[in-house]
Amino acid sequence: MTRLALIRHGQSQWNLENRFTGWVDVDLTEKGIAEAKKAGDLLRDTGAEFSACYTSVQKRAIRTLWIALDEMDRMWLPVTRAWQLNERHYGGLTGLNKAETAEKHGEDQVKIWRRSYDVPPPPMEPGSEFDLSNDPRYKLYGCDVPATESLKLTLERVQPYYEKEIAPHLKAGDSLIIAAHGNSLRALVKILFNVADEDIVHVEIPTGNPLLIDLDKGLKPTQARYLDEDRAQPIPAVS
Amino acid sequence: MTRLALIRHGQSQWNLENRFTGWVDVDLTEKGIAEAKKAGDLLRDTGAEFSACYTSVQKRAIRTLWIALDEMDRMWLPVTRAWQLNERHYGGLTGLNKAETAEKHGEDQVKIWRRSYDVPPPPMEPGSEFDLSNDPRYKLYGCDVPATESLKLTLERVQPYYEKEIAPHLKAGDSLIIAAHGNSLRALVKILFNVADEDIVHVEIPTGNPLLIDLDKGLKPTQARYLDEDRAQPIPAVS
Repeated sequence: MTRLALIRHGQSQWNLENRFTGWVDVDLTEKGIAEAKKAGDLLRDTGAEFSACYTSVQKRAIRTLWIALDEMDRMWLPVTRAWQLNERHYGGLTGLNKAETAEKHGEDQVKIWRRSYDVPPPPMEPGSEFDLSNDPRYKLYGCDVPATESLKLTLERVQPYYEKEIAPHLKAGDSLIIAAHGNSLRALVKILFNVADEDIVHVEIPTGNPLLIDLDKGLKPTQARYLDEDRAQPIPAVS
Repeated sequence: MTRLALIRHGQSQWNLENRFTGWVDVDLTEKGIAEAKKAGDLLRDTGAEFSACYTSVQKRAIRTLWIALDEMDRMWLPVTRAWQLNERHYGGLTGLNKAETAEKHGEDQVKIWRRSYDVPPPPMEPGSEFDLSNDPRYKLYGCDVPATESLKLTLERVQPYYEKEIAPHLKAGDSLIIAAHGNSLRALVKILFNVADEDIVHVEIPTGNPLLIDLDKGLKPTQARYLDEDRAQPIPAVS
């Protein structure tokens, strides 16, 4: 049986401060580190063996993976970093906290940006504080940094990467770990569970709680569960 | 200019206890962690940019790399793990400390095993305490675990890996970091600096002290220096 473990990174400093983070490279809090450790412990205790790991190019996801692999005594597993697994880019909202965003744009508009599938926030101003278009990592990976993204736009870069780089390994029978972000994982869940556009925005993936999915040969989920049951969230129905 | 940074892992628990470690997956000591941090600080302070990293499948090297990348704020660099960069396999000496080895085999014989280029120690007994031939990582990487290795045998697996997987990237102008082990790095230094068999066994590479090598288009060293000058060792002559 092929297994896929999805891990959303542990709590970051800006999760704690309730700020839109997107592509800003914010690190884990102490609580986030503890969540990552627990994720690794829970994965190790399943006895499941994995063949490779995927993560984003953002340190909160990479560190979550490192900590989990250390706990699993699997630091030797191959790891591939991909900007396509980055968090959704929040455009001009980046850096704002909930209150600031509501004050600037109004509660209703903010709800639309957070909860609609295909409405991106206003673009990030070039040269603004959080503009990462000149960050060396994106040059290295040949990534044209977006100015803003809806969940739909996020999926439009997650999906080709999944299909080209990840799915072939799953089809070959390799069990994989993906350590990524709330919205890049939402995109993966949408693809795997065939979730409707209007439903996917309500799927919440808890931080640092591995979602272990069993897949059939066609890569359809046959079973799925959060390893930390006390912090589980509803999982889309297995069809 | 293409640059290659070689980092020998920081002090491990068995370095401290003076035991032959080889392929046993011993972790860093607190001192080793501090050395890895300093290695990262020194590399960061050079301002050199790197495109990718290589390491072994042993945690003392992987952790050294992780700590250094964290200090450099380069956790996003691609990392390839390769068993071919593992430490020399010390065969039946594995786990013994200096005194035990001398008692068991005599001082003179031990000196031959440590200081000859092509005399391997006695093979590890199958099924003995440190036999790793069933370790899942070697199955994953398709590695036939050796029973013992001389430095020559170590080089015979380092060299093809270097030529096939590493050298093409250097030739393409990518600067690389390799975090590995005393003897796999000796093998690389032998290849790069064209060191004679009888001389390479006297080349000492200090732990956690990056050796930064500038290479010309033919991958010949044009300059080389240890970044921590206070803990430097002689470097083979640049021809």
